[in-house]
Amino acid sequence: MPPIPAPDTACAGRVARYLDTLTKPPGSLGRLESLAVSLAAITGEDFPRVGPPAVVVFAADHGVAAEGVSAFPQAVTAQMVANFVAGGAAINAFARRIDARLEVVDVGVANALPAEGVVHERIRPGTGNLAREDAMSRDEALAAIAVGRRAAERAAAAGCRCLIAGEMGIANTTASSAMLAALTGVPVAELVGPGTGVAGEALAHKRAVIEAALSARAADPADPLDVLAKLGGLEIAAMVGACLEAAARRLPVLVDGFIATVAALTACRLDPALRPYLIFGHRSHEPGHAHALAALDADPLLAMELRLGEGSGAALAFPLLEAATAMLAEMATFDAAGVDDRSEHEEPRA
Amino acid sequence: MPPIPAPDTACAGRVARYLDTLTKPPGSLGRLESLAVSLAAITGEDFPRVGPPAVVVFAADHGVAAEGVSAFPQAVTAQMVANFVAGGAAINAFARRIDARLEVVDVGVANALPAEGVVHERIRPGTGNLAREDAMSRDEALAAIAVGRRAAERAAAAGCRCLIAGEMGIANTTASSAMLAALTGVPVAELVGPGTGVAGEALAHKRAVIEAALSARAADPADPLDVLAKLGGLEIAAMVGACLEAAARRLPVLVDGFIATVAALTACRLDPALRPYLIFGHRSHEPGHAHALAALDADPLLAMELRLGEGSGAALAFPLLEAATAMLAEMATFDAAGVDDRSEHEEPRA
Repeated sequence: MPPIPAPDTACAGRVARYLDTLTKPPGSLGRLESLAVSLAAITGEDFPRVGPPAVVVFAADHGVAAEGVSAFPQAVTAQMVANFVAGGAAINAFARRIDARLEVVDVGVANALPAEGVVHERIRPGTGNLAREDAMSRDEALAAIAVGRRAAERAAAAGCRCLIAGEMGIANTTASSAMLAALTGVPVAELVGPGTGVAGEALAHKRAVIEAALSARAADPADPLDVLAKLGGLEIAAMVGACLEAAARRLPVLVDGFIATVAALTACRLDPALRPYLIFGHRSHEPGHAHALAALDADPLLAMELRLGEGSGAALAFPLLEAATAMLAEMATFDAAGVDDRSEHEEPRA
Repeated sequence: MPPIPAPDTACAGRVARYLDTLTKPPGSLGRLESLAVSLAAITGEDFPRVGPPAVVVFAADHGVAAEGVSAFPQAVTAQMVANFVAGGAAINAFARRIDARLEVVDVGVANALPAEGVVHERIRPGTGNLAREDAMSRDEALAAIAVGRRAAERAAAAGCRCLIAGEMGIANTTASSAMLAALTGVPVAELVGPGTGVAGEALAHKRAVIEAALSARAADPADPLDVLAKLGGLEIAAMVGACLEAAARRLPVLVDGFIATVAALTACRLDPALRPYLIFGHRSHEPGHAHALAALDADPLLAMELRLGEGSGAALAFPLLEAATAMLAEMATFDAAGVDDRSEHEEPRA
């Protein structure tokens, strides 16, 4: 795997000092200021840019869908890929708002897909049913990671300056929850919620399927690739690769919701040098997300109660990154604008 | 005052039902879906639009600045207006990002301002010092409200479809905190925090100034115009007027931070029919903001730890409104996209 460079702390320090010369009370732009400092550390640029962003939606099917863990049938994965190609999904609308380069990658969809408008990199037609067998082999997981790497390479080659990895895959909250339980040891009952619409007895069933799979697969929590292969998904593996490749190229990774965060956690377990390159876009309504975020010490920018995936939460957060860079590039300093700095002013009487 | 129409609940109902036909699990776009329904109720349009937005920054000085309640000298108000005109402030950078019509209105700045680039509507050169006298007369408050109304009229005439009212006025957190204490009865110690940079003994002093002013002015909490005149500010009164006029024209009002929320609360006390037209952009770090929001039963879209004003928090939230409208206008339905709806699918086994 290509090495991930250390963040540029000197550049981050310069930007932090420069922020205090801009025409605003020091620190008064809050998290936008810390975002600007993070982007400087990631890119090594005093005036970082984040546009255009790349949105890559990785799609794959999950054998565990046969266990009835999702409210939607497996056919929906391929149908939604066709919807992405036609431009009618939520991520299409949001990607247009942020002038993103949108790419849809088939890493392992079970059904037929449009020939045009999809990057065809199918490793296998869906994973094995993790309730009965390993989701995939170690080699398949590595191949899917490489699919994600290539997508990040294409994004960088196209001039994109920020990566958003999204996903589509019926039953992939089941796979992600199993991975998260294996990686963190948090009990399944605390992780598994309604996903995109399962409740009541169906929810209890989903939890039972995951509990049984965790016992049967016995993935090694110290070996993230083992967890990914035995319990994960092809699109999740691709997201792992996309995060790692983007960071190796000093691109900020704007992480979406629950499934993207589990992928980011897995990628950080593979290479902890990734963590400073991750910016978290959205706190999902999925209960497992809080645990995944805690494991990464992450506090997302938005909390809009989304539970969709596709990269939608990250795409909604992207304008905040752009605003942080505009603050740096466009605001006047106290000196240039002729505004009195408080430091030149007698302290207010006590 | 012109009447504010009732929200269009029939349109809101149609939009809520339409949302469940779009290619996403029902409700999975969370607060974006409720935003879309609110925008439908406000505008009466099944496919509402919110762009271009108007950002109006109202500027005025405060006599209470003489009490040493701010970390910055009073001259900064006029200097920052010049900075707005030159395009170097935070709100300039953020307004550009959202293609806003930005207008700067002098409602009562104490010092000289640029002739060009400012709407000159100065009622008086700063308020009286509320620690020693009423901030303004009732007639002056009404005149400042009318300044805000005219700004909203200009925004509507220019084709703007959403109003953001911002403010600049050294010491205006002191005036807003006094108003909020008078309107809600919440103790000053719970409301008054560091504002744009006051702490320690200076903070205790600021609290004492407000406590004394509340006793001396004895504004009638049941008469919002009395509270505004005795304890408020010219720019705050203008924000009240801008909110009311925008709502009368069925424009959504995207409310900024602490001071804008106190203005919105005052406006709602004057006419409760305003409330459904308010969308809250940002939860400020200023401690009084939580109380002002609670009084309006409001939950802002963002919480970026800003404490700047100028309309900055609302401008950062605006892309979420645009995304809500894009979701409605651009997403495909299950039928049109040929995606299986869960309702056509056997329920997952329990």
